[in-house]
Amino acid sequence: MLIFVGLGLYDEKDISIKGLEAIQKSEKVFAEFYTSKLLGTTLKKLEEFYGKDIELLDREGIEIKSDKVIDIAKDKDVSLLCAGDPMIATTHIDLRIRAEDACVKTRIIHGASIQTYAIGLSGLQNYKFGRSTTIPHPYKGIIAESPYDVFKNNLNNNMHTLFLLDISDDPMTINDGLDILSKIADKRDDYNFKDNLCVGIARAGSEHPVVKAGFIKEILDYDFGPPLHTFILPTKLHFMEAEALVKFADAPKEILTDKK
Amino acid sequence: MLIFVGLGLYDEKDISIKGLEAIQKSEKVFAEFYTSKLLGTTLKKLEEFYGKDIELLDREGIEIKSDKVIDIAKDKDVSLLCAGDPMIATTHIDLRIRAEDACVKTRIIHGASIQTYAIGLSGLQNYKFGRSTTIPHPYKGIIAESPYDVFKNNLNNNMHTLFLLDISDDPMTINDGLDILSKIADKRDDYNFKDNLCVGIARAGSEHPVVKAGFIKEILDYDFGPPLHTFILPTKLHFMEAEALVKFADAPKEILTDKK
Repeated sequence: MLIFVGLGLYDEKDISIKGLEAIQKSEKVFAEFYTSKLLGTTLKKLEEFYGKDIELLDREGIEIKSDKVIDIAKDKDVSLLCAGDPMIATTHIDLRIRAEDACVKTRIIHGASIQTYAIGLSGLQNYKFGRSTTIPHPYKGIIAESPYDVFKNNLNNNMHTLFLLDISDDPMTINDGLDILSKIADKRDDYNFKDNLCVGIARAGSEHPVVKAGFIKEILDYDFGPPLHTFILPTKLHFMEAEALVKFADAPKEILTDKK
Repeated sequence: MLIFVGLGLYDEKDISIKGLEAIQKSEKVFAEFYTSKLLGTTLKKLEEFYGKDIELLDREGIEIKSDKVIDIAKDKDVSLLCAGDPMIATTHIDLRIRAEDACVKTRIIHGASIQTYAIGLSGLQNYKFGRSTTIPHPYKGIIAESPYDVFKNNLNNNMHTLFLLDISDDPMTINDGLDILSKIADKRDDYNFKDNLCVGIARAGSEHPVVKAGFIKEILDYDFGPPLHTFILPTKLHFMEAEALVKFADAPKEILTDKK
């Protein structure tokens, strides 16, 4: 059996009891940290805490050479660990399909994902979020504009947008992400973009996450400290949401009276 | 300090290690199970597993008489437990605001929510989900139509919709939920509604959840067994999503070739 185990975010203690038991019963444990990362711990700490050796897989190991994982899972209990929730990444959905094709049973042990953490920490209301999107690093100087389209479309439908940031190589900062969106806004003569509110969230899952709300033009230069970062661009706020942002995210008090 | 602890879904082992440690260090432990429920366990089992007495709060205890909770949290570490993730329910956001108003520090320990479980189990892609919505029990025979509007709006924007079902009193079944939506569709002469695909999910988080996909007209009579139930009405599928639904949710094979 191939068991996908979500570790939650941040460190070795964000895993569920059920997940921990599954790892300890497994005969082989793999992990991958390219779809998501745990910045509050190390592979060595995970191994010590779980009491198991862990073989780290890179992208190729999951996407191309995954036959190895599936082969071992044919007659052994194998766990595959990843940060957050396993099924947020399409890579794992694909691996699960291939395992079932090879008659290998699969099981999912969920973990809290960045969506849960970010929305929860912001104080914004979950049911007001539309589609979320990921901002990739520019590739050969070319900026992908689809994240901006997702935001505008959500805004037209009165929904908040959660932006996940590229974590490959150098994890993207909130400032970099906003800078990319601002360039797209400039190109499209969308002059009001920088007046939109932004809720930046750094190190979700740690004991002292930073949650800071302000207008984009202010947040563009705000120092959120080390990664991982993510941010939300909200649509019109419910009064209780505005109150939560002022209380928990040091948002400018004017949003309490704004009818925006 | 008031610590909101998410228990994840289903039973006592879906809590994170971090959450368990917080409970065990707390001087007073409250729980509420009216915003969400754990059907794989009992209050007694939770108390035994966590090694703590738990005082159960009803809706009034959280929404009106919460001063008691906040008062105790002024000089003691108090945990408030709930199923899923604590900040999905606006009730807890409100309580957190009132705690901070009373100068009581708060902390959130996240748990995997029904959104994570349901989307993960379905095999559908997370970034294609629009706003989610809850179907309430009809009140004095009157059906709330807003969930249907959320679905139609998501559909127009090519987004999937996750439907949460009323858990007060008698938890709503998938069949009841679809029946309510069908009545609204009939009233609006929306004749194609029952040809939409539906992914029903029962007992997410248990070792043997039921995940069954089919057209609404078929799923209307499908027996999903005991609660809790939830369902997804997808928009157009990516090919890999169709493959996942056929593999994991016994969807009709025709969706693999449909260009719908």
